[in-house]
Amino acid sequence: MHFTIFPIDGGVSAADGFFADGVSAGLKPNGKPDVAIVYSDTICSIDAVFTENSFKAAPLLHFMQKGEFQSNCVLINAKNANAMTGDEGIEDVDFVLSALQNKFPQIKNPVMSSTGVIGVKLPKEKIIATFDMLNLEEKDSENAANAIMTTDRWSKTIAFRVELEDGSSFKIGAMAKGAGMINPQLATMLCFITTDAAVPASHIKPRLKEAAYTTFNAASVDGDTSTNDTVMLFANGKSGVYCEEAFVEALRLIMQHLALEMVKDGEGANKLVAFEVKNANSVEEAEKAAKALSNSLLVKTALFGEDPNWGRIASTIGASGVKADPKTLTITYDDVVIYEKGKSKFDADCEAKASKVLQKDEFRIICDLGQGTFNFTAYGCDLGYEYVKINADYRT
Amino acid sequence: MHFTIFPIDGGVSAADGFFADGVSAGLKPNGKPDVAIVYSDTICSIDAVFTENSFKAAPLLHFMQKGEFQSNCVLINAKNANAMTGDEGIEDVDFVLSALQNKFPQIKNPVMSSTGVIGVKLPKEKIIATFDMLNLEEKDSENAANAIMTTDRWSKTIAFRVELEDGSSFKIGAMAKGAGMINPQLATMLCFITTDAAVPASHIKPRLKEAAYTTFNAASVDGDTSTNDTVMLFANGKSGVYCEEAFVEALRLIMQHLALEMVKDGEGANKLVAFEVKNANSVEEAEKAAKALSNSLLVKTALFGEDPNWGRIASTIGASGVKADPKTLTITYDDVVIYEKGKSKFDADCEAKASKVLQKDEFRIICDLGQGTFNFTAYGCDLGYEYVKINADYRT
Repeated sequence: MHFTIFPIDGGVSAADGFFADGVSAGLKPNGKPDVAIVYSDTICSIDAVFTENSFKAAPLLHFMQKGEFQSNCVLINAKNANAMTGDEGIEDVDFVLSALQNKFPQIKNPVMSSTGVIGVKLPKEKIIATFDMLNLEEKDSENAANAIMTTDRWSKTIAFRVELEDGSSFKIGAMAKGAGMINPQLATMLCFITTDAAVPASHIKPRLKEAAYTTFNAASVDGDTSTNDTVMLFANGKSGVYCEEAFVEALRLIMQHLALEMVKDGEGANKLVAFEVKNANSVEEAEKAAKALSNSLLVKTALFGEDPNWGRIASTIGASGVKADPKTLTITYDDVVIYEKGKSKFDADCEAKASKVLQKDEFRIICDLGQGTFNFTAYGCDLGYEYVKINADYRT
Repeated sequence: MHFTIFPIDGGVSAADGFFADGVSAGLKPNGKPDVAIVYSDTICSIDAVFTENSFKAAPLLHFMQKGEFQSNCVLINAKNANAMTGDEGIEDVDFVLSALQNKFPQIKNPVMSSTGVIGVKLPKEKIIATFDMLNLEEKDSENAANAIMTTDRWSKTIAFRVELEDGSSFKIGAMAKGAGMINPQLATMLCFITTDAAVPASHIKPRLKEAAYTTFNAASVDGDTSTNDTVMLFANGKSGVYCEEAFVEALRLIMQHLALEMVKDGEGANKLVAFEVKNANSVEEAEKAAKALSNSLLVKTALFGEDPNWGRIASTIGASGVKADPKTLTITYDDVVIYEKGKSKFDADCEAKASKVLQKDEFRIICDLGQGTFNFTAYGCDLGYEYVKINADYRT
């Protein structure tokens, strides 16, 4: 089926029937918004994919225990992850969400999401105190997106209107946060997607998983995996329209855009690098090698130094545990061939060209293993002084 | 059998019949020694354990192809790894070693070892030009140890005399280099061990492997694995003495000392941290969790910031893929309990005590998983601005 995807404004509240707001509970010392709400005026089918960390945070455990996949609201707070907080943490989620329903009877089966410091009790009274300020008739997607930020330098939102060939259309929008701990296995990032497409409930989780594989799961800032990662989708069906092919493509574009925004905003990062591993023996091996590159500290610091030190690329491929042979390996920076099937091409001319590639904000490093026919692209960034600065004293 | 281990001077040339020298081939721009030789005046049984990187450097491939385990000499150069140099790289090793034997007919079956930049042709004429300066009658272990340094801040040598209860004794000594790319899978580090103990040839490799498992393989600076890692042992039997138990213990002490020296000298590192994982379901799980901690960027930057952010420790354990449960987990910094079986102990008093531990140069972080009975200790360091600085422009 033919369809067209148009970017639109409105982020997470762009789709019909969705509302969003962001207010301050005083958790961020500067008084910026730190509590967000996303609400639909009709009940939604919802589902989520979560971190693979075995110490899942309380709001994730609460969601999984509840197993309710019909809801019309998610409440999100920054500055406190409500992780490693035991049964009390889960009780705190229940307490906050009960207070939310008492305040707003139109909210059904609300869920919660948190990001911030691990191991500190949820400041539930401060969060509840914001309910007087929350407005469920607002479409303030920008304040909501600001509220969920932690070390992010900018807020991350996107929305599309998807028009089918019969003229019918649906909308899909999202907001996300994440600038560190972004990792191959879905590290600390939160992403909330809303759509008025009539997505069958059973489609939500498999489509989220598929789209995450080549987007959020392919993005890496520091290789760490958090306790709170969440990608959640609300579908209220208000448009009455559904075309699986169009929905899958729009969902992939939404998630790819937000994943790349997170890598670009990687703590202290200045460069977005696509690590393309080609012609591996299996897609798993291509993925393993590509993620080894995007997670290597030596590669990331060489990128920061804009040093075309291709030996570190080769060494990382060799150390990644995938089938590879120097005699079939070719390494290319954008279109500059550095090493080709056993021979270094790295003369002064090549070095000058490679250095120019490395000075760009976005470029590709392509490793053709010459072994099989499988490809995978991982997205990474450089690692510089700012990363150390941000992470040496994030907690305090 | 009872035995006593005495530290002695003399490093890699401490044992009887061993000699060492270091000279400058002009590979290091400051004119410091960059070519080292270790020589025994009688033939030795030798063997080595190498990197698991599948792109092994030319000198390693040369050693493995030759399969000669009787030799009395190793020649080592810094500044050039002779890695990713194809068949030509191996021919260059042959060429250099033939020239060495022409110059010194007393050298039998010499082997080579290299460390430095990957993918650049070996400067063989410069190396050969140093042979006129090499003195096989020198016991200049300090110059040899200096010659093999790359980003090391200090040279690393150690030697012991091991006295058995019958009054007989043997000596064992070593030199090593490595300050970055030190990794769980034996990353770029070189270590040369010499002994006059009468070690049976068949004992060398298995004893090296055993000792590496809890020493070099447990040490991590940045989690990257190099093309050149080598631990090589020469045994010339001159003392006529061998006691397996004493030899194994002395070898372990030698390798542990050098491994911890490397971590302390980790590029830009200021702290040596022992990550002790206790009561895991298997030794493999204990090792996996301990190495996840020692390699985590978020943990390493928190150590640099002297921030007792125990949530990152917990999150890393949760993400490591080993069986763990917040309700059985206990986290301790030296003797300060931070988190105990589901309960945070992190009040103001605890934080003050934990902060004091983190201000020390050496301390332990203990994670008791409370699952089984297996333990493993990994050694790591903090990661700060200096690491980024060193690695952003190491090549140039």
